[in-house]
Amino acid sequence: MRRQKNYNYAFLFYDVGEKRVQKVFKVCKKYLSHFQYSVFRGELTPSNLIKLKEELKKVIVEEEDFICIIKLVNDNVFGEEILGNPSGNTGEDLII
Amino acid sequence: MRRQKNYNYAFLFYDVGEKRVQKVFKVCKKYLSHFQYSVFRGELTPSNLIKLKEELKKVIVEEEDFICIIKLVNDNVFGEEILGNPSGNTGEDLII
Repeated sequence: MRRQKNYNYAFLFYDVGEKRVQKVFKVCKKYLSHFQYSVFRGELTPSNLIKLKEELKKVIVEEEDFICIIKLVNDNVFGEEILGNPSGNTGEDLII
Repeated sequence: MRRQKNYNYAFLFYDVGEKRVQKVFKVCKKYLSHFQYSVFRGELTPSNLIKLKEELKKVIVEEEDFICIIKLVNDNVFGEEILGNPSGNTGEDLII
């Protein structure tokens, strides 16, 4: 049986109904760092991933909303290229 | 010297000015598959990554736009969790 990987880092991006953006944002912010508009990232233990998913399921409308969590073993397994201005508008000011 | 990793898979997300979304979308679509709104993903060789970056640099306005490319060795090094409806609106209809 293939050994289950122990994921400890994640990227999360969402596309949810406007009425639910604020709630989804607040749940994500409890577990991850806000990176850009609808993208969060950061260290995320397996147990916190379970909690995050449970909280998100209570907030979203399954048929209308979409959330993708990319799990990585740690932050050494990926590289990153940034074009443009990372300090641009993260959209946080949209969240009152 | 640490061995340079050979990245062959990527996630790309962007946050660009409305006037440039269509151009950025078209460039991304040449190299990656559209996944959700401002998110692309797929296999991407090192040489195609260089071409993609060069084409994007010609289109974006550095001070205003933001593009992040997460490079992975292959599509085995990450896990994926989807909540909600992946076939929801990918936003492609917004691109005329």
